Amino acid sequence: MPVPLVKESDVDVLVIGAGPAGLMCANGLAKAGIIVRIIDQRSSKTLHLSHEVMAGQADGIQPRTIEVLQSYGLAERLLREGNQMHMAAFYNPSQNGGIERTGRVADIKATTARYPFAVTLHQGAIEALFLDSMASMGISVDRPIVPTSLQLSADKTELYDPNRHPAKVTLMHLNAKEGQAETEIVHAKFVVGADGAHSWVRKTLGIAMDGEQTDFVWGVVDIVPDTDFPDIRNKSAIHSNNGSCMVIPREGDKVRIYVQLTDKEDVDLRDGRIDKAKIGPEKLMQVARKSFYPYSISTKAFDWWTIYNIGQRVASKFSVDERVFIAGDACHTHSPKAGQGMNASMNDTHNLIWKLAYVLRGWSDISLLKTYELERRKYAQELISFDKKFSALFSGKPRSENHEKGVSHEEFLEAFQSFGGFTSGIGVHYAPSAIVNTNHQSHASNLVIGQRVLPHVFTRAADGRPYELQDLLPADTRFKILVFAGDTTNKDQMQRINALAEGFVHPNNFYAQFGGEEPSTMFDVLTICSAKKDQVNYTDLPAVFRTHWSKVLLDDKDMFERAGGQGYESYGIDPVGGALVIVRPDGYVGMVAPFECVGDLGQYFGSFMKT
Amino acid sequence: MPVPLVKESDVDVLVIGAGPAGLMCANGLAKAGIIVRIIDQRSSKTLHLSHEVMAGQADGIQPRTIEVLQSYGLAERLLREGNQMHMAAFYNPSQNGGIERTGRVADIKATTARYPFAVTLHQGAIEALFLDSMASMGISVDRPIVPTSLQLSADKTELYDPNRHPAKVTLMHLNAKEGQAETEIVHAKFVVGADGAHSWVRKTLGIAMDGEQTDFVWGVVDIVPDTDFPDIRNKSAIHSNNGSCMVIPREGDKVRIYVQLTDKEDVDLRDGRIDKAKIGPEKLMQVARKSFYPYSISTKAFDWWTIYNIGQRVASKFSVDERVFIAGDACHTHSPKAGQGMNASMNDTHNLIWKLAYVLRGWSDISLLKTYELERRKYAQELISFDKKFSALFSGKPRSENHEKGVSHEEFLEAFQSFGGFTSGIGVHYAPSAIVNTNHQSHASNLVIGQRVLPHVFTRAADGRPYELQDLLPADTRFKILVFAGDTTNKDQMQRINALAEGFVHPNNFYAQFGGEEPSTMFDVLTICSAKKDQVNYTDLPAVFRTHWSKVLLDDKDMFERAGGQGYESYGIDPVGGALVIVRPDGYVGMVAPFECVGDLGQYFGSFMKT
Repeated sequence: MPVPLVKESDVDVLVIGAGPAGLMCANGLAKAGIIVRIIDQRSSKTLHLSHEVMAGQADGIQPRTIEVLQSYGLAERLLREGNQMHMAAFYNPSQNGGIERTGRVADIKATTARYPFAVTLHQGAIEALFLDSMASMGISVDRPIVPTSLQLSADKTELYDPNRHPAKVTLMHLNAKEGQAETEIVHAKFVVGADGAHSWVRKTLGIAMDGEQTDFVWGVVDIVPDTDFPDIRNKSAIHSNNGSCMVIPREGDKVRIYVQLTDKEDVDLRDGRIDKAKIGPEKLMQVARKSFYPYSISTKAFDWWTIYNIGQRVASKFSVDERVFIAGDACHTHSPKAGQGMNASMNDTHNLIWKLAYVLRGWSDISLLKTYELERRKYAQELISFDKKFSALFSGKPRSENHEKGVSHEEFLEAFQSFGGFTSGIGVHYAPSAIVNTNHQSHASNLVIGQRVLPHVFTRAADGRPYELQDLLPADTRFKILVFAGDTTNKDQMQRINALAEGFVHPNNFYAQFGGEEPSTMFDVLTICSAKKDQVNYTDLPAVFRTHWSKVLLDDKDMFERAGGQGYESYGIDPVGGALVIVRPDGYVGMVAPFECVGDLGQYFGSFMKT
Repeated sequence: MPVPLVKESDVDVLVIGAGPAGLMCANGLAKAGIIVRIIDQRSSKTLHLSHEVMAGQADGIQPRTIEVLQSYGLAERLLREGNQMHMAAFYNPSQNGGIERTGRVADIKATTARYPFAVTLHQGAIEALFLDSMASMGISVDRPIVPTSLQLSADKTELYDPNRHPAKVTLMHLNAKEGQAETEIVHAKFVVGADGAHSWVRKTLGIAMDGEQTDFVWGVVDIVPDTDFPDIRNKSAIHSNNGSCMVIPREGDKVRIYVQLTDKEDVDLRDGRIDKAKIGPEKLMQVARKSFYPYSISTKAFDWWTIYNIGQRVASKFSVDERVFIAGDACHTHSPKAGQGMNASMNDTHNLIWKLAYVLRGWSDISLLKTYELERRKYAQELISFDKKFSALFSGKPRSENHEKGVSHEEFLEAFQSFGGFTSGIGVHYAPSAIVNTNHQSHASNLVIGQRVLPHVFTRAADGRPYELQDLLPADTRFKILVFAGDTTNKDQMQRINALAEGFVHPNNFYAQFGGEEPSTMFDVLTICSAKKDQVNYTDLPAVFRTHWSKVLLDDKDMFERAGGQGYESYGIDPVGGALVIVRPDGYVGMVAPFECVGDLGQYFGSFMKT
């Protein structure tokens, strides 16, 4: 039969790979109204059959990632379906030859976390959050498809014009029926390679991975355990004289157990090769049982198992010409024990989505996209350096009479807790750049510029309903202008507020300059007064600071005093004079300014926006 | 064409009427595995076309009703879709001839409410919660169908045998196509008439309504207002010298306004007749505008409007032979201003569901069903008496120089707040009966027997996750046995716990006597220790008190000290010696007992259960 002509099509963004990074990207772009296509090499059938694979990948959703998912409206279902890890337990060698508990602490050491726990849920269920959200917008993953060639135009004019399609990608349909085209050509404005640790996109672009293999070899089993171990539903770190284990409770009654393998018979540590014939889940359970003693642990069946010796590597660059990007495992690989893999991946593309949208809408110059590598590569490097320290501590022998240089419980605990800001994702801190301007930090001293907005409950002026501020900062690609109006019962301050409002609507001000005729497409203005709910009428504020009755908040407790209050204090803002805070579309603080420096906002937006 | 033979069928429960009371009933019975059929006279098409009608009915979901919906897994969506009323504002005549605000308070004065606010949402959306839940079980409303005859067997043997079908109901299909049967006959074990204020079931049974019409005539409009009134998003009670108004904010930007009509031209107060030709929404807005002065209020369109002069009546009985029941508006009518209608209705059938299930399963004697009227008729009478006081106060002239006997702000506010337990539904208190045994109240002095279980957060022993206790008491028709185990670090107490456990599993104990071979089908045992999370291993408790790792709770704060702790104190239970608390399937406390009186539980269950 004659093969049809090769089909060619245009797309704004082609996402290659439908794991968590790729799905976050496609869903976010679609929500932003960008024309996006996402492909994956796995067929739906394979996906269905490979439940074990899906069950096995990735570990937990960390507190910051839950916040991010919430900003896309996806956290509610995650929290309903997943297991929450609140408590961590530590076991060390006891006098009697077995192990004993040396402490229980909060799993997450990040006091500002809105969700102070990690959620464990199999990767298929997490991907389903995105797939269902995308389906509601009429978008699905094209599969099974693999890219076979990728060419990027060398023409600088084409590369700098966001309306052009400089990336030409050839795709092969793996399940093409007879008479159907096996290949097609896609012309994309941008390509995102979210195609995993063995990324075809990365290799095709010739991007090197910097870093090395580790010496530590671990086995993993997913089981429904039968055990008398009292911390089986906690994240438990077991250091015994018979090896180390880590317990990660999962959804339902499932538990994941990581077992360190030190037996040279099974594993050749010099070149990291593992003889899979010599080892199996039964063997891993044998090793685990030794560490658990005097507690017993067994299972009727194995849900999934594997053995790994992972590299700790970061890609040397994250993009080529700001036209093709790599994200997720394609640009960083590390051990899964810290449970960061899926989190780092989703946060990579969360960082990229709004930037792509701004460039594609013609609002920003293409150079805005340089901040993706700047922000996310630095983070990936910190992740690897954290992972090295943590893995070494975890794999070290416990301190004992025979091992005076071993790792003590105190050492491990201190490291565990001091890493909290990192493992929770809460401490992620983007460096100064066009979109992170730290000039006026002192005016909101605790809203760290470059970090995500601290969660806090404020009470809505119009109806006394308490709201978590983060819920009013959805990932809708808009910049949020938080007008901390100060004390609106103070006449002088009301004069300042009215003056500020006049400035806001002046044609020379950033609000009109960059917001255009409909500033609400780019800006969402929220006003937060320090006065109390019996004193404030939202109707007293200037119109630009209350574009809808829901846009005025108070730093006051709710009617039952269950939440709210002291937000100005928590954020480090003057409760009389107030301040302006710019929140980026991804929820990170971009800039702070006192009322008097409202002009500086024009410079901030001018540094990456077109007027 | 020949008309087919009349179709006859059997059903466990026939529910007539698919408003909130009927839907709550059918959904709950279906969840309990009962064969239920629900019919309604409105066609789907009518439902669709009569958006105005749906929008207009019913006012708000009160705190206790939200708790009940949560116990069926339906509250999350309600909270997402509805408007929350947190704040109430009061306006009274000012010196300048208009009105001024005299105060803002919490809308709900019920400090133990889990959800301290009412939710406003149109009735169609509330019905959709049930319809979607039923659809997931394969059940839908048969419509448009009306019952045309109802006969109940006079045979006592048949009436007392729950396996028989003593009710014969003839149904007429209103939209039957040619050649299809227009009538059918249903033989039901039980019939629930939830067919509204003009209930056909009630009239057919010849049940009288006791009570009277009021003198007060009110108009209602649903609008999206354009106004400078600063409390338009609060529940606002306006007493002006130009009439009274009540503002109820609704979902989106909608607001409902109640306007008292005193103009004798429009309304003949002697016989309560209203000339609808003389009045319309514009006129109602005119009246409202007078009360609102000096604030302005207008609208572009009317979503819905009506005028009413409601009766305050209660049915003389709620059932005939415990085989046919009436529920909801069919047995009580009252003014809508207190926002009780839909709440009373749904709570009627919530009370009935588990009782019907127990009788139909052969677990309980049919006499259990007598407690439905006992509990719900008393409540309905209290509701009417509350409504009378509240309506009179609300309709009274405000106190002023010319009206020294008028209602002062303080009087109104005091009444508003003292009614809080009632309007919130939190204070509902069922009288002693077979299922409300108050003998040992002192052992849990604040868990009032006959009231719903106080919400409180406990921390799960196995994993440190905080849980609202109410969420562990779902409406799954099981009795919950709360074993407040006391201080499990105390050796003497552990001996008492172990002794109690031995007693539990003894064949003469209530647990085996009434629970049979699989006690978990009737009982859910939750154990709550007063010891702290670093001290308790859930594995130390006797097996019957931890049938699953999730069944052991601690009276301790969560890992971040954000919730939990002091539960024993709140409930008035001895933190060393503990107590046993029986929670009915509908969430109301049925009995309390000290460990030593575990035998009394046998008497409690024996009074309404078969062994």
